[in-house]
Amino acid sequence: MNATAPHTTGTDLQPDLQPDLQPDLHPLDRATRLVPQPDGTLHGHTDADYANQVGPFGGVTAATLLKAALDHPQRLGDPIALTVNYAGPVADGAFTVVATPLRTNRSTQHWWLALQQGDETVTTATAVFAQRRETWTATEVARPAAPAPDTLPRAQYSQVARWIDRYDLRFVRGALFGAPADGSEPDSVSTLWLRDDPPRPLDFVALASICDAFFPRILIRRPKRVPFGTVSITTHFHADTALLQAQGTAHVLGTARAQHFGRGFHDQSAEVWGADGALLATSHQICYFKE
Amino acid sequence: MNATAPHTTGTDLQPDLQPDLQPDLHPLDRATRLVPQPDGTLHGHTDADYANQVGPFGGVTAATLLKAALDHPQRLGDPIALTVNYAGPVADGAFTVVATPLRTNRSTQHWWLALQQGDETVTTATAVFAQRRETWTATEVARPAAPAPDTLPRAQYSQVARWIDRYDLRFVRGALFGAPADGSEPDSVSTLWLRDDPPRPLDFVALASICDAFFPRILIRRPKRVPFGTVSITTHFHADTALLQAQGTAHVLGTARAQHFGRGFHDQSAEVWGADGALLATSHQICYFKE
Repeated sequence: MNATAPHTTGTDLQPDLQPDLQPDLHPLDRATRLVPQPDGTLHGHTDADYANQVGPFGGVTAATLLKAALDHPQRLGDPIALTVNYAGPVADGAFTVVATPLRTNRSTQHWWLALQQGDETVTTATAVFAQRRETWTATEVARPAAPAPDTLPRAQYSQVARWIDRYDLRFVRGALFGAPADGSEPDSVSTLWLRDDPPRPLDFVALASICDAFFPRILIRRPKRVPFGTVSITTHFHADTALLQAQGTAHVLGTARAQHFGRGFHDQSAEVWGADGALLATSHQICYFKE
Repeated sequence: MNATAPHTTGTDLQPDLQPDLQPDLHPLDRATRLVPQPDGTLHGHTDADYANQVGPFGGVTAATLLKAALDHPQRLGDPIALTVNYAGPVADGAFTVVATPLRTNRSTQHWWLALQQGDETVTTATAVFAQRRETWTATEVARPAAPAPDTLPRAQYSQVARWIDRYDLRFVRGALFGAPADGSEPDSVSTLWLRDDPPRPLDFVALASICDAFFPRILIRRPKRVPFGTVSITTHFHADTALLQAQGTAHVLGTARAQHFGRGFHDQSAEVWGADGALLATSHQICYFKE
């Protein structure tokens, strides 16, 4: 997420992306909708439901870029890795996505992705897709203990940013703004249940967005109101399409922590677990912060 | 690292990259040397000292791409994040690097990097650079306990791949091929001291390569001789130039583990610590494996 990017002016709304012409779409599908153009690019539009304090929620930007590859006619297999770099502020309004399969091997495919507004590249990304096959399997990390989501209250952060209402968040520990402001909190760990609101069957688009929905760790460890924002996020997908489909609309369990804060940046590593106990994705980002 | 890419033929050696014309260069500087061309691209050449079983060691490929941005006249600040995607096999021989500063903001800069041989893009990368400033600082993870490097034997893996001899590796735990082949090893953790051989002052180029020098975790957890290779690696740099310079030629302490193995891929997260106890970098990769 990014809450401090300066606002710039987006281009005009295109008729084929008018939100009120798509009343039956889930908000996430509306926000990530892309319309192919004759020149091979894709047109999209930011969605007010996923607005951040300024511009759109970065998770939806990541999901939109991944969707451009997922929906491409040359797409091979499932996503394995996605890196999204937030190069500049995304303005509210229309944008163009360029999705290029740079190289397709027998079982892997490498993508270059960019989101542009006017003459500016505002977000860049790379993605790796692969045809997955059965192999030996093991999970070395342990799923955090957590009571069932329906035993926990839903977090209320409507006042922080509009996109947060599009997630049903139930914190086990490490809630936003729950720590003392002096940095005396001993760690930045958050563990929480997450689900799209309204509920929506889990897929790679939704999972890519969820991986950026943990709030930068500086807000958990030392909740001062200072500028902050994700600069780059890398998600490794451990689940394939079938495993994601098996999740249905259940909450997923997420846990996130920083390893180091210093000289204007901190990292954040997250795990996303299915309700059935399978590790669906691990995600690593670097965020800037001031003070 | 990647040990299973099919061998293809590189283009001819250029006179300005003849290794024997650079006898005084450290092998890493020779292997990552780039010669600017009139069209703005850079020419390089793989180096036999960093040969893998097939093609070059992937860490040096990552370091070469980062170096293209580091040496660029428009470079701003220090690297913060580097993602390298091994799209296809790098052939022994000459290559071309394209380094494009896609966007330069007031204090951050976003790079698109590619390594090409003939008409093929064989490696892609993105990098984020930033001017770093003093802020609040904290490290949440603990440096692993380790006896001093001079009390441990140097690992001998000359028979595995030639690049390994370019590192002085001293394992505290989790040595290569040290586990039973049946997968009964309980985890894939390795902790080891690493140093360039010959010793070389630490910088971002060396650190980028070291972050890929841990061996894919499948070889630690279940050392069967099966095809494997890094597909994508992301490194987050916590150290700035001054902190790296302070390391001199001391060993760094690395620790790496996988979180999940399954359906042909596993991840790997690593930390690299300075001899003085500072966390220099965290790195996350995804590797393919068979069986």
